[in-house]
Amino acid sequence: MTEPADPQALAEACAEVMWADDRASRGLGMMLDHVGPGRARLSMRVGDAMVNGLGICHGGFIFALADSAMAFASNSHGEHAVAQQAAITFLRPGKHGERLTAEAVERARAGRTGLYDVRVTAEDGAVVAEFRGHTRSLGTKFFGGEK
Amino acid sequence: MTEPADPQALAEACAEVMWADDRASRGLGMMLDHVGPGRARLSMRVGDAMVNGLGICHGGFIFALADSAMAFASNSHGEHAVAQQAAITFLRPGKHGERLTAEAVERARAGRTGLYDVRVTAEDGAVVAEFRGHTRSLGTKFFGGEK
Amino acid sequence: MTEPADPQALAEACAEVMWADDRASRGLGMMLDHVGPGRARLSMRVGDAMVNGLGICHGGFIFALADSAMAFASNSHGEHAVAQQAAITFLRPGKHGERLTAEAVERARAGRTGLYDVRVTAEDGAVVAEFRGHTRSLGTKFFGGEK
Amino acid sequence: MTEPADPQALAEACAEVMWADDRASRGLGMMLDHVGPGRARLSMRVGDAMVNGLGICHGGFIFALADSAMAFASNSHGEHAVAQQAAITFLRPGKHGERLTAEAVERARAGRTGLYDVRVTAEDGAVVAEFRGHTRSLGTKFFGGEK
Repeated sequence: MTEPADPQALAEACAEVMWADDRASRGLGMMLDHVGPGRARLSMRVGDAMVNGLGICHGGFIFALADSAMAFASNSHGEHAVAQQAAITFLRPGKHGERLTAEAVERARAGRTGLYDVRVTAEDGAVVAEFRGHTRSLGTKFFGGEK
Repeated sequence: MTEPADPQALAEACAEVMWADDRASRGLGMMLDHVGPGRARLSMRVGDAMVNGLGICHGGFIFALADSAMAFASNSHGEHAVAQQAAITFLRPGKHGERLTAEAVERARAGRTGLYDVRVTAEDGAVVAEFRGHTRSLGTKFFGGEK
Repeated sequence: MTEPADPQALAEACAEVMWADDRASRGLGMMLDHVGPGRARLSMRVGDAMVNGLGICHGGFIFALADSAMAFASNSHGEHAVAQQAAITFLRPGKHGERLTAEAVERARAGRTGLYDVRVTAEDGAVVAEFRGHTRSLGTKFFGGEK
Repeated sequence: MTEPADPQALAEACAEVMWADDRASRGLGMMLDHVGPGRARLSMRVGDAMVNGLGICHGGFIFALADSAMAFASNSHGEHAVAQQAAITFLRPGKHGERLTAEAVERARAGRTGLYDVRVTAEDGAVVAEFRGHTRSLGTKFFGGEK
């Protein structure tokens, strides 16, 4: 396949390749709601296996959702990128059964480094977590070899 | 049950209560290898459902392992504590099938705030990730009511 | 002095008290350009004493500017708050002689914890750094005693 | 000058070059107490211009001390490196007149990325702050051109 020239078409083509490979995100029941250049929105229901006895979602799954959103946003430009460092602030618990949405936005891209902010919200609009992550481009392309 | 007076016995008693409740950590196949006052060591095998097509572990599961280790370390003093903020640096990929170990150490505890460092290593001793997290004590006790 | 009822007037009154006390921010040549409820904007020129031989601003002064902006934003509600944890990503160097502006925005406030994002920009609009910090309210008030 | 073959001699030679250039660290009264491969220890007295009306050190100066320690540790291998991202947790205030010491230790170096932990302590041994930072190597050398 040739690399699409249109940024939106490129973002969607990259996401399709990634999604087919990403057993982990699919296994957690994530859905890819939207992808665009430097952006992605994923959602996930807090399932039985994600909670403790109090019905509160383990923070690892909230991080995983945000991390996946960053992965799709940072891989939307046609070049492979991986997470290097990320921080998350937990603002209110994720509850059993509710659907969480992670919206990733690119803040900066310079050289091989990318900076992304991801907000995780609940269905009632409450902010569950704020995530900020740094990615490194690997210098390889989705379509058509080395950069 | 009365609160054990010995710090090590208290840490073990708290861990027993938490573990019984923690469907999420057990569901990911984590094992609680050791717990002590302000310390905990957990391990987990990188299973089929945790990897992408390249056999690389999704960062969310590495974070989850480290976060669980912090949870056991921070809840070892008899008072409930929750994660408030955490950052993780990914140093080398977790590989399909390997067992990862997370060792949590308390760096500071002042007022209701705790600071924990968690190192995640592979079986060959390589450092997979360095995690640093902040917890907040809720002011409630495992054994015998409010503080 | 009685606590002003209007949030904007309160923010300005708190800032006035803080500014009079804040020898450090004034000593670095900072100017308080704007303050409002949960917001603050400060600016500072990169002076001779802030640079290395290459004319690049030491990161500590960029952090200090962002930290001061968070301090004014987090102390704008009439209650004393202090920085607990903060992270900064450096995106492009601060240059000798240029004026840097830090704009702090409140992302969340829950219990005694606050979350603030601060963007530091240069005169040409380029983003020099992105800062994210957490504050703790001390439970004491600027005007009229304990909460 | 030729690059010293001995790692300790190299670290000291790099530090000498940096120190001569670093007006900012010298201007804040920092002293370079020790440097070695991947390590550095700097100290600084909390001066009049660093405190607010309560005699508490502005967090920016504590960050600056830790950041300088990371700079000397990360530039100790003969290659130029710069700070990319750093986080600091403030554990107890720095007081007017006391000498703070920052000890930087290299946690990892892979490709062009470095990870450093810096602990800032007071004269009484109390931990004032824990700092963790990430550096990027620029690919240029102190002695003898490009890598």
